Amino acid sequence: MLKRYFPILEWGPKYSRSTLVNDLTVAAIVTIMLIPQSLAYALVAGLPPEIGLYASMAPLVLYAIFGTSRALAVGPVAVASLMTAAAAGTLASQGTPEYLGAAVALAMVSGLMLIAMGLLRLGFLANFLSHPVISGFITASGLQIAAGQLAPALGIHAKGENFFAIVIELGRNIRFINPYTAAIGIASLIFLFWVRSSLKPLLRRAGVGDRVADILAKVGPVAAIAITTAVVWRFGLSSHGVSIVGTVPKGLPKLALPPLDLSLWMKILVPALLISIVGYVESISVALTLAAKSRQRVDPDQELIALGAANIGAAVSGGFPVTGGFARSVVNYEAGAETPAAGAFTAVGIALATMFLTPLLFFLPNATLAATIIVAVLSLVDLGALKRIFIYSKADFAAMVATILATLAEGVEMGLIAGVSLAIFLHLYSTSKPHVAVVGQIPGTATFRNVARHTAVSDPEILSLRVDESLYFPNARFLEDLINGSVAENPRIRHVILECPAVNAIDASALESLEAINQRLKDGGITFHLSEVKGPIMDRLKKSHFLKELTGGVHLRHYDAVASIKPDLADRTLHAGRVEEPVA
Amino acid sequence: MLKRYFPILEWGPKYSRSTLVNDLTVAAIVTIMLIPQSLAYALVAGLPPEIGLYASMAPLVLYAIFGTSRALAVGPVAVASLMTAAAAGTLASQGTPEYLGAAVALAMVSGLMLIAMGLLRLGFLANFLSHPVISGFITASGLQIAAGQLAPALGIHAKGENFFAIVIELGRNIRFINPYTAAIGIASLIFLFWVRSSLKPLLRRAGVGDRVADILAKVGPVAAIAITTAVVWRFGLSSHGVSIVGTVPKGLPKLALPPLDLSLWMKILVPALLISIVGYVESISVALTLAAKSRQRVDPDQELIALGAANIGAAVSGGFPVTGGFARSVVNYEAGAETPAAGAFTAVGIALATMFLTPLLFFLPNATLAATIIVAVLSLVDLGALKRIFIYSKADFAAMVATILATLAEGVEMGLIAGVSLAIFLHLYSTSKPHVAVVGQIPGTATFRNVARHTAVSDPEILSLRVDESLYFPNARFLEDLINGSVAENPRIRHVILECPAVNAIDASALESLEAINQRLKDGGITFHLSEVKGPIMDRLKKSHFLKELTGGVHLRHYDAVASIKPDLADRTLHAGRVEEPVA
Repeated sequence: MLKRYFPILEWGPKYSRSTLVNDLTVAAIVTIMLIPQSLAYALVAGLPPEIGLYASMAPLVLYAIFGTSRALAVGPVAVASLMTAAAAGTLASQGTPEYLGAAVALAMVSGLMLIAMGLLRLGFLANFLSHPVISGFITASGLQIAAGQLAPALGIHAKGENFFAIVIELGRNIRFINPYTAAIGIASLIFLFWVRSSLKPLLRRAGVGDRVADILAKVGPVAAIAITTAVVWRFGLSSHGVSIVGTVPKGLPKLALPPLDLSLWMKILVPALLISIVGYVESISVALTLAAKSRQRVDPDQELIALGAANIGAAVSGGFPVTGGFARSVVNYEAGAETPAAGAFTAVGIALATMFLTPLLFFLPNATLAATIIVAVLSLVDLGALKRIFIYSKADFAAMVATILATLAEGVEMGLIAGVSLAIFLHLYSTSKPHVAVVGQIPGTATFRNVARHTAVSDPEILSLRVDESLYFPNARFLEDLINGSVAENPRIRHVILECPAVNAIDASALESLEAINQRLKDGGITFHLSEVKGPIMDRLKKSHFLKELTGGVHLRHYDAVASIKPDLADRTLHAGRVEEPVA
Repeated sequence: MLKRYFPILEWGPKYSRSTLVNDLTVAAIVTIMLIPQSLAYALVAGLPPEIGLYASMAPLVLYAIFGTSRALAVGPVAVASLMTAAAAGTLASQGTPEYLGAAVALAMVSGLMLIAMGLLRLGFLANFLSHPVISGFITASGLQIAAGQLAPALGIHAKGENFFAIVIELGRNIRFINPYTAAIGIASLIFLFWVRSSLKPLLRRAGVGDRVADILAKVGPVAAIAITTAVVWRFGLSSHGVSIVGTVPKGLPKLALPPLDLSLWMKILVPALLISIVGYVESISVALTLAAKSRQRVDPDQELIALGAANIGAAVSGGFPVTGGFARSVVNYEAGAETPAAGAFTAVGIALATMFLTPLLFFLPNATLAATIIVAVLSLVDLGALKRIFIYSKADFAAMVATILATLAEGVEMGLIAGVSLAIFLHLYSTSKPHVAVVGQIPGTATFRNVARHTAVSDPEILSLRVDESLYFPNARFLEDLINGSVAENPRIRHVILECPAVNAIDASALESLEAINQRLKDGGITFHLSEVKGPIMDRLKKSHFLKELTGGVHLRHYDAVASIKPDLADRTLHAGRVEEPVA
């Protein structure tokens, strides 16, 4: 029991010296990768760079205690940082203590929500983000982040609450471009794109092993940072208008509670919930993928608790919302992380950097950080998914396009809410008009099939319908209209039989509709029968009055239903010469 | 085509003298019933009594032109009146021209929405109101209306935006009770309850025919009104604090457009949509029920247009939102209405009353009108439904209770929105954890069944799973967790087969999950197979890359899938001695 909530008790006692050496190596690599990323994502969130470092210590230690994935690397990530900026931006201006307070409170509320969801086993809430919605949302977020970072990469100002607003501002301010900054930004971009696309093949050809080449290619941004920092320092470019990181406070963050302001917490409930769910979906996908590669077990409910603890850790140490990120986790996995302790050692690495390396960051140009962000987030943009999903499903495509457009035009919160709402709506719509077949008896058999597809015998006084969907509120009235309409159009009908082999559930609305259908048919002198009702549904129907009021019977096979009404017809058709017919 | 949108062209030309006589008789009866109701529901809506009369003319004529139901009686109804009061009350105070303007605009916007829904065939939107939600909503609305009318019935003041607020006000002001008003109100209540429960049996015993007795019992309120009006006039009770209707403006309403104020229209969009849908659901249920009794056809999409036209008619003649009501429609049907013309003749009756009878209403005590409302709406309160639904389905029960409580505590709009949201949420939740069975081969057959229920043979290297639900976003991740977990727990597994006979759809999210499952199993050295995939789903899968990447195969029968992996085992089990086993 204790081990379920504290997975560290599982692997901790077995910890060996060789595992320690291995985890320390991994931690060194990930620390080097995490320093620039944590600074950069703090900028995406509109926060001072040291806040990124703060969010990369306590959360990693807490995840090591509570997490079930061996490879997941928790910390600041692009999309959650953007969502933090959007939420905090509605409450205060960037640079104010209120803005920082809102970001910290977001981490706190989000952490509490995640823990509550974990304890209450509400992980299924993440299901409400369908794949096209989350994919569209991440693509649009990536575009917005990239657009937002183009301004610092070129040395101009262009802020906006959504993609289009930022693009308009960029166009308006492009004439104020700073040539030194732009040179650094563009050179960094070219270098980083080259590292991403060409360095690994080059190293491989030079005889470097696959994994090492991969990891070297991923710590490339550190080289860009070192070189551009040196250039700015050497040539005194900061006096030519190149924006630099400047003084990053030295030392560890102080532990403190986030602002305990109930009205603030109420205002951030919705954004905190969205950050929690998006962060969880991102994190659990990475964790499951990496765990499967090594056939390890990830517990989705415990992951909620671990992410929650990590966010509370971020909040009490002055950080902002964190989650498990894709790129760093893959490096963790490929470098061979054996236990979550690798994450804790990474936290120590970041702590050492915060204590001793911050002076080195003084001349780091913001343009380089912006360039690292642009290269990182453009890998999130997956426009190819649009085409794949269009081919597979028009409804899913509509949900994805709506999510992208709403996010680009209205920002992350509205985009996500619009996408989720539309996906749910389209799902309900698709089940509201289920496939219905009029069925008839295949001569020579007791089998009933769609009369539109097969040569089948039916009696003009009997209407046999098969509905290929569970019966519940989205389609309850559809069924009423259908039977009502069929009977009104066809005055000869004396009996209606509903064949239910594909009906997995009948809810109270559908039961009400069945009762209304039965009553209306009765008023019109028509009997109503059911056939092939599944066991669990039959158990439920027995609890209602419907079976007592039903004018006809409930039959195991559709054949029995027809035979109970017209024994002659059913029997004659059964013994007719068998017709060889393809049966769907 | 023209006949579809103007059903009057269908029945109009066949109109005969005998039909005319019949429809006129029906109209006379319904007019007598409608006069007090239209006054009373105007009071529920917080409007002057004449507005109720105005809403009972043009809408009836327009419904006669556009409607497809022969018996439906359109006009002011209780729940829509309460919803009008709630919406208009947020914009202006009762008694102001702005309040009346808001009520008229609600009818206009609601009418335009209904017509748009009809032309776009969006009638399925009404499906989103599940039966437990609408039932709970009507029950709570009935309780709120009854509580609200207790104050005028007792001669005290007690206004409130929800049931609990009204009850608290009633308790606080009960000491200001006016004995004369209370005497009239309570006497009317007792009389009306007696009419409702005991008059019909009494008349039947006195030899009156069933239908006539029924109709006489339903026009009972007119007697209460005549008697109490006479008493107030004779004894001058209005000078003793008995509130009376007073001067009702004589004559027909003037035609005019409602306030064309875009900001007002935007504010009432949501309440107008809710009124439209609730009104439509109420109306179409009545229409379908009555049409079925006489095997007539009601066109749900055309009904939207007809109700829309009726509401626009209400708006341009100074009325408020209308819909098809249950009680009057039943009288219409039972009195033998043969065509919608009966409704148009009722409108003429109301017009005559407005021109000549309004002076008679001067001394009508409001307490009597309040009593007629209380008796009418208490028949809407169906607490028995709570018990029936509790027995049948706990999820539906939860949705109904939530709707009732939210409506009583937060008013009609929030109540309805909360109920619909919860119903959709519970539906998605129920499909998010579908029934899954591990299946094995029944010896002596090629049939595979749940190993938990049957004596079945399975190989430790093969995991055969059957999911009894369509695969889509609510359960996509569930499937990943399930297979991931099963494989992690059982290191001997080399093959996973998913049996899909109950899968009616696979959306893009589930496809993504299947691809992830396939990739993760592949990384773990396990093959992934599908069996019994339905034709339409197979067609779709062929459009994706999934089938190309699938490590295993897709097999028609589950037996073929197992035989493709372990031919010996499947074959040996097939030819083993047949075990007689009940097969689910």
